[in-house]
Amino acid sequence: MIFPFTAIVDQEEMKLGLILNVIDPSIGGVLIMGEKGTAKSTAVRALADLLPDIETVKGCRFNCAIEGPFCSDCLEKFQDGGLIEKEKKKMRVVELPLGVTEDRVVGALDIEMAIKKGERHFEPGILADANRNFLYIDEVNLLEDHIVDLLLDSAAMGINTVEREGISFVHPARFILVGTMNPEEGELRPQLLDRFGVCVQVNSLREKDLRVEVLKRRSEFDDDPERFYQKWEIEQQSLAKKIVNAKRNLKNVIISDETLFKVVEITSELDLDGHRADIIMLKAARAYSAYSGKEEITREDIKTVAPFALRHRLKRLPFEDISTETEKLHATLERI
Amino acid sequence: MIFPFTAIVDQEEMKLGLILNVIDPSIGGVLIMGEKGTAKSTAVRALADLLPDIETVKGCRFNCAIEGPFCSDCLEKFQDGGLIEKEKKKMRVVELPLGVTEDRVVGALDIEMAIKKGERHFEPGILADANRNFLYIDEVNLLEDHIVDLLLDSAAMGINTVEREGISFVHPARFILVGTMNPEEGELRPQLLDRFGVCVQVNSLREKDLRVEVLKRRSEFDDDPERFYQKWEIEQQSLAKKIVNAKRNLKNVIISDETLFKVVEITSELDLDGHRADIIMLKAARAYSAYSGKEEITREDIKTVAPFALRHRLKRLPFEDISTETEKLHATLERI
Amino acid sequence: MIFPFTAIVDQEEMKLGLILNVIDPSIGGVLIMGEKGTAKSTAVRALADLLPDIETVKGCRFNCAIEGPFCSDCLEKFQDGGLIEKEKKKMRVVELPLGVTEDRVVGALDIEMAIKKGERHFEPGILADANRNFLYIDEVNLLEDHIVDLLLDSAAMGINTVEREGISFVHPARFILVGTMNPEEGELRPQLLDRFGVCVQVNSLREKDLRVEVLKRRSEFDDDPERFYQKWEIEQQSLAKKIVNAKRNLKNVIISDETLFKVVEITSELDLDGHRADIIMLKAARAYSAYSGKEEITREDIKTVAPFALRHRLKRLPFEDISTETEKLHATLERI
Amino acid sequence: MIFPFTAIVDQEEMKLGLILNVIDPSIGGVLIMGEKGTAKSTAVRALADLLPDIETVKGCRFNCAIEGPFCSDCLEKFQDGGLIEKEKKKMRVVELPLGVTEDRVVGALDIEMAIKKGERHFEPGILADANRNFLYIDEVNLLEDHIVDLLLDSAAMGINTVEREGISFVHPARFILVGTMNPEEGELRPQLLDRFGVCVQVNSLREKDLRVEVLKRRSEFDDDPERFYQKWEIEQQSLAKKIVNAKRNLKNVIISDETLFKVVEITSELDLDGHRADIIMLKAARAYSAYSGKEEITREDIKTVAPFALRHRLKRLPFEDISTETEKLHATLERI
Amino acid sequence: MIFPFTAIVDQEEMKLGLILNVIDPSIGGVLIMGEKGTAKSTAVRALADLLPDIETVKGCRFNCAIEGPFCSDCLEKFQDGGLIEKEKKKMRVVELPLGVTEDRVVGALDIEMAIKKGERHFEPGILADANRNFLYIDEVNLLEDHIVDLLLDSAAMGINTVEREGISFVHPARFILVGTMNPEEGELRPQLLDRFGVCVQVNSLREKDLRVEVLKRRSEFDDDPERFYQKWEIEQQSLAKKIVNAKRNLKNVIISDETLFKVVEITSELDLDGHRADIIMLKAARAYSAYSGKEEITREDIKTVAPFALRHRLKRLPFEDISTETEKLHATLERI
Amino acid sequence: MIFPFTAIVDQEEMKLGLILNVIDPSIGGVLIMGEKGTAKSTAVRALADLLPDIETVKGCRFNCAIEGPFCSDCLEKFQDGGLIEKEKKKMRVVELPLGVTEDRVVGALDIEMAIKKGERHFEPGILADANRNFLYIDEVNLLEDHIVDLLLDSAAMGINTVEREGISFVHPARFILVGTMNPEEGELRPQLLDRFGVCVQVNSLREKDLRVEVLKRRSEFDDDPERFYQKWEIEQQSLAKKIVNAKRNLKNVIISDETLFKVVEITSELDLDGHRADIIMLKAARAYSAYSGKEEITREDIKTVAPFALRHRLKRLPFEDISTETEKLHATLERI
Repeated sequence: MIFPFTAIVDQEEMKLGLILNVIDPSIGGVLIMGEKGTAKSTAVRALADLLPDIETVKGCRFNCAIEGPFCSDCLEKFQDGGLIEKEKKKMRVVELPLGVTEDRVVGALDIEMAIKKGERHFEPGILADANRNFLYIDEVNLLEDHIVDLLLDSAAMGINTVEREGISFVHPARFILVGTMNPEEGELRPQLLDRFGVCVQVNSLREKDLRVEVLKRRSEFDDDPERFYQKWEIEQQSLAKKIVNAKRNLKNVIISDETLFKVVEITSELDLDGHRADIIMLKAARAYSAYSGKEEITREDIKTVAPFALRHRLKRLPFEDISTETEKLHATLERI
Repeated sequence: MIFPFTAIVDQEEMKLGLILNVIDPSIGGVLIMGEKGTAKSTAVRALADLLPDIETVKGCRFNCAIEGPFCSDCLEKFQDGGLIEKEKKKMRVVELPLGVTEDRVVGALDIEMAIKKGERHFEPGILADANRNFLYIDEVNLLEDHIVDLLLDSAAMGINTVEREGISFVHPARFILVGTMNPEEGELRPQLLDRFGVCVQVNSLREKDLRVEVLKRRSEFDDDPERFYQKWEIEQQSLAKKIVNAKRNLKNVIISDETLFKVVEITSELDLDGHRADIIMLKAARAYSAYSGKEEITREDIKTVAPFALRHRLKRLPFEDISTETEKLHATLERI
Repeated sequence: MIFPFTAIVDQEEMKLGLILNVIDPSIGGVLIMGEKGTAKSTAVRALADLLPDIETVKGCRFNCAIEGPFCSDCLEKFQDGGLIEKEKKKMRVVELPLGVTEDRVVGALDIEMAIKKGERHFEPGILADANRNFLYIDEVNLLEDHIVDLLLDSAAMGINTVEREGISFVHPARFILVGTMNPEEGELRPQLLDRFGVCVQVNSLREKDLRVEVLKRRSEFDDDPERFYQKWEIEQQSLAKKIVNAKRNLKNVIISDETLFKVVEITSELDLDGHRADIIMLKAARAYSAYSGKEEITREDIKTVAPFALRHRLKRLPFEDISTETEKLHATLERI
Repeated sequence: MIFPFTAIVDQEEMKLGLILNVIDPSIGGVLIMGEKGTAKSTAVRALADLLPDIETVKGCRFNCAIEGPFCSDCLEKFQDGGLIEKEKKKMRVVELPLGVTEDRVVGALDIEMAIKKGERHFEPGILADANRNFLYIDEVNLLEDHIVDLLLDSAAMGINTVEREGISFVHPARFILVGTMNPEEGELRPQLLDRFGVCVQVNSLREKDLRVEVLKRRSEFDDDPERFYQKWEIEQQSLAKKIVNAKRNLKNVIISDETLFKVVEITSELDLDGHRADIIMLKAARAYSAYSGKEEITREDIKTVAPFALRHRLKRLPFEDISTETEKLHATLERI
Repeated sequence: MIFPFTAIVDQEEMKLGLILNVIDPSIGGVLIMGEKGTAKSTAVRALADLLPDIETVKGCRFNCAIEGPFCSDCLEKFQDGGLIEKEKKKMRVVELPLGVTEDRVVGALDIEMAIKKGERHFEPGILADANRNFLYIDEVNLLEDHIVDLLLDSAAMGINTVEREGISFVHPARFILVGTMNPEEGELRPQLLDRFGVCVQVNSLREKDLRVEVLKRRSEFDDDPERFYQKWEIEQQSLAKKIVNAKRNLKNVIISDETLFKVVEITSELDLDGHRADIIMLKAARAYSAYSGKEEITREDIKTVAPFALRHRLKRLPFEDISTETEKLHATLERI
Repeated sequence: MIFPFTAIVDQEEMKLGLILNVIDPSIGGVLIMGEKGTAKSTAVRALADLLPDIETVKGCRFNCAIEGPFCSDCLEKFQDGGLIEKEKKKMRVVELPLGVTEDRVVGALDIEMAIKKGERHFEPGILADANRNFLYIDEVNLLEDHIVDLLLDSAAMGINTVEREGISFVHPARFILVGTMNPEEGELRPQLLDRFGVCVQVNSLREKDLRVEVLKRRSEFDDDPERFYQKWEIEQQSLAKKIVNAKRNLKNVIISDETLFKVVEITSELDLDGHRADIIMLKAARAYSAYSGKEEITREDIKTVAPFALRHRLKRLPFEDISTETEKLHATLERI
């Protein structure tokens, strides 16, 4: 049994960052920065637990959605005129083990099959498991660069194409990437930072009342998880509904020219490279508008999500403290 | 034949740390810090030897308890309506060999079976052996980080899920993790320190009378282990009973709001990150109350166990000696 | 669906560098230098998407052209008098995965076939896939030197000869090599730099209007890719035709002795080693003349392409800034 | 043919250290420290050659003693009621090859058997060969730590339990561990030093008469080994008898309380950690008493063996010379 | 089609170094030092292309000459009285791939044959391919030392003997070793430098007329290789004939005592170690005499080839520039 | 055809060092120190070529002598009463390849046999080839320590015992170990230096007449090896006879007590560790007496060979030049 998402004390920024990605997965993942002991993994699992089941093609190893896109297996089945049945699956949090190999991530030839039957089959990898689920990487800064690269590529493309040793296989790989890092334990290359959609911060709670609340809820949950769950059920259902609605309304939110210019003004003022900051900020603002039930992106929406989209893309000069840049960010946001 | 636990001279802190984890395994393990030659491994083996047998599903390779949770094999047996018989097993101390691989820890595909019969079976790893036993890691600071990570994860989750190369297997992995380290031989990352429930210290005995006592008991035991054992039998049985009772009464110990606030006050004053310190201190205090036969956690209980829960979580500034922080801890405990 | 090449805002230098290589592939590839987030990969994919299909021998795993040169398989088929049928294929962008092995690049013995049937067959590698397509290497400076070497060799020779473990196989390997590098993330050895035909730069757009245009086109495309595509169709077709014409007229462009001397004068003045700079500059100028629809290489053509051919071949003294040399280049170009 | 132990010129300390371990193997091994060229290996082989044969269960691959403890094979035989015959074997010096693997040390699954017959058999390792023999490690400080650890563990436990890949095998592993190290070629971690029972020193002979004697005996032996052997036969037999008697009388030697306090006084004065120094000193003194034919441990016995038990356990402060500590040791011994 | 050797502009030193090795292969190879982009590889391929075909035993995988020496296969055929037929083969330039393994160089057991038929056959390596051909190593200073060693050994012995895993195979391995290195990219150990017969330098052409000539010939060749070839045919044939004649007359060139003393005087004055410098200088001078059509080695011949034989064997003191030694060499040559 | 040993110009020390080891192989090998280009390998091959054939058991893969000691195969044959035939074999120089593995040196299980027939056979290694031959290690200081160790162990024991993976095989391994090293390219550990019997130096010849002689003989040999050989045949035969006689008379040379004391006096004065220096000096002196045809070791014999036995065993203080110690050696030798 998992601790309810809505019972997590404080940490609003982390919660919102995760929710915005659920509403619009093309935002491209969340990087959670924070110290040890700040239940990051719990939060992701809790959110997954709260969301409605996904509907997949029955028996598909890649969780293909009934309306597509499809994996090579499903495509073949369609072409053969086979009957496509549905099944429902709970959303999962697929965790990336440390020391994972590329083969394990993208999938590989099923060696056993090849040897025993002389048939080449595709053995799905972690990207297959992750399709339409969360992919969680703890301490992403300790992972090897080429694996991070590969994951961020897939997150961006939404598809996994494997062509090796005579197998040619394609399957959708649309997942919500969640990475965590403790900035005290090493950095991520700017190249990689930039490819995480948004970045949120978690902090230890300093207020005693909040800490006692955490302790109380935790021991209550540990003592009798089921009773605790019942207590939070209404809040859980109400959040779930809010997210589902936001997903549905997302494309209807109006993006005015003024909004576009505001977005570009912010990134220009901060002298940011590339166009990703612009695009992500726009998408996050739209998701937030939808979540808030609005019909058009407002100045406030942009101000709320801008730190998420920009924090990890700020230029830091050597010897210059990150806080200088953060102040500049906030000053800029005040002005727009 | 193993040296009796109760015949171990002094070292009360180490002994209590181990006992508290037996009473409430959710405390999450003990890290024993101390110099060489201070029979840490002997103590763990001796405690395991003193505890009553565990009752398991007969023939289960994972020591599943008769009342669950169950491994994939037992679950299948249940569903097939098979008859579940019991058997009793002595508790074991499973030792983690240096240089162990991840496969050996979590288990892996039984390659031989796969090659010979074309069947995929799960070959249990060390986590399977460790279920409901002690898992002992000597010099945990010399182990590779990703293995330590993996063990601490399993200790926290109480379950081992293996999904690789076409096998999907789940089994309970609830064990009492005991790590030792000699602080002169290297550090553990704060991330890892934090994930050990409690931390105790052992020291060489300096008093001559105690040392002669150690020498005497040791040579007596070496000369005639069986006679020595008879001599200590009553003490052994009485301790065993005390532990069993504490386990039974654990959930009945009352946790007052005052207790919660005291716990939070201590960690706040010491400016500790995360919530684990709070939770562990509370659990250890409750286990100690139960062990002492009390009905409610007292201020003294908290004071006794607080060092176990906090010592390894103290913040150490660069160039600052650990003893400064330890003094601060004791001053804080005096005030509450 | 791919973002249309002609809808890419600005970045004229990158676009021209790619187009010149399509017109005369013997130029030997493009190295794109630029910061993160400047859709380099998108541009290559977009160009491939715009170009007409290639006509290959039906069923050939190496995309052999109907008029040759041929792979060992096609040659054998010819000699056996087999009927050679055509098929059309979309041009592809073959991406080089990080951590790729030599075997994967050049191809290898098909181990499975060898074991199962005792027959030695050639398992095509990436160079086979890349024949008559684009070969894209992201962050080429992070790749191992011997792999870069191997690719540049093949790009230069246009053929891949594999002789190992008893297989002897030859196939054409004519591809347009596109490498990217972020100069902030490490250097390439001068040896390797020299072997890229031309080098172009991309920069983040600083002008707000352009940035808004990027954002606008991007969200339009993301919202409804098909409608966006229709809007740009005429521009796409017109560019495609211009490229096809340039390819056809390339060999007819006149190279006067004056042109030869101008080329040598530039490289002499800049004191460049080797003769590759001379040859590439001449070829690029001819391709540009053909693209511009001219009959003879003009002084302006040389001035336009000289930076592409020379930028990465300039000698840099220790402690000397690259910009000093770049100024010298421009001064030299003014004088000719 | 091996050079006779009794014909070794001088080196009394090394010879006594080895003999004491033969008399009481629970002393836990000898670490011989000395320069190159001081026939350490010869001495061990010569002592093994002089000792009487061991009596083992006929055909047992683990040299099980007829009176136990038994290996898994012998146990099974017993339970099946099979006839247990005896055989005599010469004692051996099993040498640990450099670069040895853990599998080779503890034994492993017999892969061949597993593949060919589908049966899992245990392939004995070096610990099996070493049971009831000498295990000799040259230059132990050059060995990998985890192998040294493993050997010292087995030496301490006297048993080798292997549970891996589906085999579960137990066999006694009681051997006399002899390690050598040249202190000029690297250190051993204090942790490991502490686990060698005693430590002795060998030195090059400086006296010319002794050196000529060495040279003479060596050339005599090289010229005609058999005649040389006859010359030393009486001395050899007399030493063998003395050792056998000491082994028999060992447990009868009286340990007075005064002895216990003397032992603890020495280690207290030297401020040594742990209790191993106490225990080993006591055991070595008792073995020496038995070897000298005494009925009770005397002050002199302790003084003789104390350096063996303490030398490698002295605390060395940084920048402090070992000789300071050694002087302190000798001063302490004078006082008791 | 390969660019004609005689059409290579300038670079006389490199061309002569290669030709002398063709005339007398016992000179032991050429090391070509020079910057990037100075068609070293082209020159070797062009020379191989110009030389007459070699006559080999028909079907021999080792290119055995009809007059011997023979490989193990040919020897066996002879002994069986088999008919030895001839065939003609074009000379080849065998290139050593970077990262090549020892097995690949010397040949190895044909694993496949061994597994499938239980027969042990020798799988020829690169040394087999290279027999009587050129062996070209690009950037020899980037190769692993033990591979360079192995190649230089074979070049010196002229034979490759493989005895491993039950195969025993001998074949001639007489090849002209050509290594290149860019001295800016690392050094070769003096041990290895010494084992290259001669060392020549290539430089970028600085004269504009020459550069235009290079560019002109290159574009002419690229435009229509066949016409270009016809234009140079007479020059090609005349050089080929000159080389063949020199080979035939080599042993007839007279070596006077005066010549011997001159050679030794040079190396003595330069204080060179070893005798290889003497021997190579003599051989190179004789080859040059033969190439020039003379009957006796002249003082001029020695002066011409001495730099080739000595340049890479000069002693260089630390901090001393190579040019100091080169001046000394030229001064010495002036005096003789 | 090999250059005749007696035609090697100068280098008397190297030649004598090799000859003494042939006369008494128990001296334990030669370490040749010298610069590159000083035909060390040629000398060893030339000496092997000059020596008479060895007589071995026919068909024995280990070159067992007809009078023993025998390998496991020959022993079994004897016990089966099989007929033992003789065969003659040329002495060989077995060369140790760089990067050789332990398995290749000592031999290993014949995997192929094991897999194909389920039989365990011993696949002989380099030590088998080397039995009764020369074992030549070029640049021994570049070899891995554990391999050098292994070779020196075998050289000392004269036997190779292999017990692994179920095979148990013994064969004689008596060879003359010849190592070379260029002291400019790295050191050997003193431990290893000490285990080479003797150490000799080679130097480049500085005298011009000698150099011309080298050059002359070399070109004569290269021109017509057979005629050259005939010219030196008498010298070759006379040296061969002299060596054979010395071998026969070796054990009859008288060793007086005075000799023993002289030997010890030298090593004492030089303060050398261990006894190996004494023993080797005595053996080398005896071999030299026998080679010179004397009946007793003289003071001159000791003086001649002492540098060979001591040079590499001199103690060198940090910052102290080797030459200081060498002078001391010569002064000492003058005094005795």
